[in-house]
Amino acid sequence: MVRIDLNSDLGESFGPWAMGDDASMLDIVTSANIACGFHAGDPAGILSVLKEAVARGVTIGAHVGYRDLVGFGRRVMEPSSSELIGDVIYQIGALEGLAKAAGTSISYVKPHGALYNTIAKDRRQGADVIAAIKAVNPELTLLVLAGAPIVEQAREAGLRVVCEAFADRAYNSDGSLVNRRLPGAVLHDPAIITQRMLRLVREGVVEAVDGSMVHLQADSICVHGDNPSAVLTAKALREAFEANDVQLRSFTVVSED
Amino acid sequence: MVRIDLNSDLGESFGPWAMGDDASMLDIVTSANIACGFHAGDPAGILSVLKEAVARGVTIGAHVGYRDLVGFGRRVMEPSSSELIGDVIYQIGALEGLAKAAGTSISYVKPHGALYNTIAKDRRQGADVIAAIKAVNPELTLLVLAGAPIVEQAREAGLRVVCEAFADRAYNSDGSLVNRRLPGAVLHDPAIITQRMLRLVREGVVEAVDGSMVHLQADSICVHGDNPSAVLTAKALREAFEANDVQLRSFTVVSED
Amino acid sequence: MVRIDLNSDLGESFGPWAMGDDASMLDIVTSANIACGFHAGDPAGILSVLKEAVARGVTIGAHVGYRDLVGFGRRVMEPSSSELIGDVIYQIGALEGLAKAAGTSISYVKPHGALYNTIAKDRRQGADVIAAIKAVNPELTLLVLAGAPIVEQAREAGLRVVCEAFADRAYNSDGSLVNRRLPGAVLHDPAIITQRMLRLVREGVVEAVDGSMVHLQADSICVHGDNPSAVLTAKALREAFEANDVQLRSFTVVSED
Amino acid sequence: MVRIDLNSDLGESFGPWAMGDDASMLDIVTSANIACGFHAGDPAGILSVLKEAVARGVTIGAHVGYRDLVGFGRRVMEPSSSELIGDVIYQIGALEGLAKAAGTSISYVKPHGALYNTIAKDRRQGADVIAAIKAVNPELTLLVLAGAPIVEQAREAGLRVVCEAFADRAYNSDGSLVNRRLPGAVLHDPAIITQRMLRLVREGVVEAVDGSMVHLQADSICVHGDNPSAVLTAKALREAFEANDVQLRSFTVVSED
Repeated sequence: MVRIDLNSDLGESFGPWAMGDDASMLDIVTSANIACGFHAGDPAGILSVLKEAVARGVTIGAHVGYRDLVGFGRRVMEPSSSELIGDVIYQIGALEGLAKAAGTSISYVKPHGALYNTIAKDRRQGADVIAAIKAVNPELTLLVLAGAPIVEQAREAGLRVVCEAFADRAYNSDGSLVNRRLPGAVLHDPAIITQRMLRLVREGVVEAVDGSMVHLQADSICVHGDNPSAVLTAKALREAFEANDVQLRSFTVVSED
Repeated sequence: MVRIDLNSDLGESFGPWAMGDDASMLDIVTSANIACGFHAGDPAGILSVLKEAVARGVTIGAHVGYRDLVGFGRRVMEPSSSELIGDVIYQIGALEGLAKAAGTSISYVKPHGALYNTIAKDRRQGADVIAAIKAVNPELTLLVLAGAPIVEQAREAGLRVVCEAFADRAYNSDGSLVNRRLPGAVLHDPAIITQRMLRLVREGVVEAVDGSMVHLQADSICVHGDNPSAVLTAKALREAFEANDVQLRSFTVVSED
Repeated sequence: MVRIDLNSDLGESFGPWAMGDDASMLDIVTSANIACGFHAGDPAGILSVLKEAVARGVTIGAHVGYRDLVGFGRRVMEPSSSELIGDVIYQIGALEGLAKAAGTSISYVKPHGALYNTIAKDRRQGADVIAAIKAVNPELTLLVLAGAPIVEQAREAGLRVVCEAFADRAYNSDGSLVNRRLPGAVLHDPAIITQRMLRLVREGVVEAVDGSMVHLQADSICVHGDNPSAVLTAKALREAFEANDVQLRSFTVVSED
Repeated sequence: MVRIDLNSDLGESFGPWAMGDDASMLDIVTSANIACGFHAGDPAGILSVLKEAVARGVTIGAHVGYRDLVGFGRRVMEPSSSELIGDVIYQIGALEGLAKAAGTSISYVKPHGALYNTIAKDRRQGADVIAAIKAVNPELTLLVLAGAPIVEQAREAGLRVVCEAFADRAYNSDGSLVNRRLPGAVLHDPAIITQRMLRLVREGVVEAVDGSMVHLQADSICVHGDNPSAVLTAKALREAFEANDVQLRSFTVVSED
């Protein structure tokens, strides 16, 4: 039986400011990337989301980012290695503390925003993130972009790596994502998204913008819930998987087949 | 043999701003209250201090404070229970993550500044701090002011509590500290400080400002290192203890006598 | 002809987090209390709102608050006088800079949240806010709660003071607001709100929760726009005023009658 | 008579953390680049320094930086144009408010750290800083690195530009500063520094690391005061200028010769 993990970014509210519909998404996904306070998330809000995730059996990942609240961790930064290592350990530790208080534990780390994009290719910052994870808990899995150089870099460093595809993003023929600023970079039609992702989990390919087929080795699919339409798309995707005998479960579950 | 713990606030630099002489103090104290990023401390700097503490065998405590960097956690605040619980768990978790990366683990929690003074008497905030510690790690000891109501409150809640006295502070006859704004509240003469603390560890009393004797049940003494003169006083105190057969060791060491 | 000012809190988004419907509210109010970055508001977002306010001829006030972003300035704090004076001047200056860039200028200052409630009665913090305004621009009007002690304190100090009533809040018989935590403290029925405010502008009275009539000397009414229903209520109030020959204009316009 | 301006970075303390010896430097310099709260400086501390500057007749400039407190504005960032324009206006406005309260006014803007280095050559961010200054107060002078592309860019945009040289830095033959990481990049010998700067003000040249002579059109010299030795060097430089008939005065003073 084919199986796949669905992950989404959650816990991104801050103080009085709400973001996304965490409760709805927790009914859809199998893995929750929880903000750790540097790009988003305040401790009380994060703890609340963690408890809801535990109640639904959703696996927890640390969504670590640059220390840039107003920029939501989306702006390129150049922290030194000691700064970046410290920042990543600090965020993982803080989330692990809150996770313990919620009766669970962190299973993986997914870098956020500009840090995610940077380490995909930047070996120095990639090495810093890897070093941070190994220093605080080498059992944590690193969740990154399928096909990116960081995959090999992290595996060579001894980390378990899981790769993800993006449900609502268009791909170039080399497996990279189409730049968000280009037309057609973000997909909105639930039927198309569902069809693409079904093919991905069954055949391991996704159609690129030039019509070619890209092979993607992905064990997780990232879905978004930052607006009501995105939540509906994520829900449609989940239902399509269930209707087509694709088993949804966390990538942290080791197969006993 | 009489024994005592010496603790001090460390890791309170922030980014480019240095504070205190952490290296010197780590040669003097047996317990280090390490800032957790809310009132002071940045991850890279905290990690560096933790490694130095590990190298010297100094016990680590989480110095948790209000989220008020510019006010250095010294300003009274009224966070809600969910905010305070979340903030304390977050800080303990973050420091524990960095401690793991440094090859050690947190042994105790000492609230900082206005939070320290508030929970000494404020049962609601005291209960929040207690709840936070129990939620993240009920094995952690709480280090608080000898004689304060929080001592009983935390013990009744099931926490291990250790009490401390202040080497460089004058006491009122009821065991409370003389308000910092009053003349004579802070002691500076190393000889007087040493004499008072020797008497405290031997007889369990300290002379109050009105000449009366205050009984203090203290297993730790807080020393400061925020200026060169304070470091010298702390060093003189340590040497006086060593010269008078007072054993210096962490209160986390369970006596095998 | 009777006239009144309508004011609302705007510019309270922060980075990626939106709050309120500023554009809609700018079509309703005559005065905009603009966040200054300490409790809410980032410079780019504030500048954008200021430009929209200028385009609609809405008067600008500095909505200064405590330095507590995660708490949205709603938590009681005890800054020292030099801290509070500095913080208020800084915020007024920052907003005036952005206002100049938008082609306008600040006309008044309205403290926000916990600072608003505190200075209503706390003479020390009230004096600090007054001193800050006088130091940076003594021509600025102070907008505060009708009937509160700060009104006389600020007038005696030489500031121009304008008083406001709250459209959606219940009043005690002494003119104070019913505590938000009590049932009935916040009014939601647009018809009742409109009726109460029409009576206020015509007769200078509002009915208290015990049925007594409270005299309020208010030249401005605060309306909220933090959710779609609140925006509709504010709009209904504006329309009721227009239909009943109540002239809506900024309190900064000196009558030439 | 030859004249020159001496400028230094001041007001860079933050809350409990002190930096530099502002009082001593204010006795030496003719222009003070005052931090505006984004890379350093809290309102109360900034106001205090401004008052001391006013008492000594020192000219005030806004030392605007990236919003990166822990990184002290020294880390490269890529804010969008609306973010950078907003951030620069906000900081200038905030400092102008505090300057008014201190009885003075800002005369110039000097970008700090990574922003200073970036706009020297990056036309997009340079244009944003220029646009911000023009939007808030086009009379403000821009103080930047002698010989950098930003000089022409800002003049073409209509700003008054003043150029500076660095007393304690080595130069490459193209007029750029030797990278801080290279040996010899920072000069420490007061005699050499004094000799170099005397030649600069008299002949308009400074010797580069390869022995060649670099022509620098500088109306101001930046001196540092971040440690006692730096303060002594700055003082020695001032005394050498005074002993050699070099008049020290702010570049904002228009010559009446």
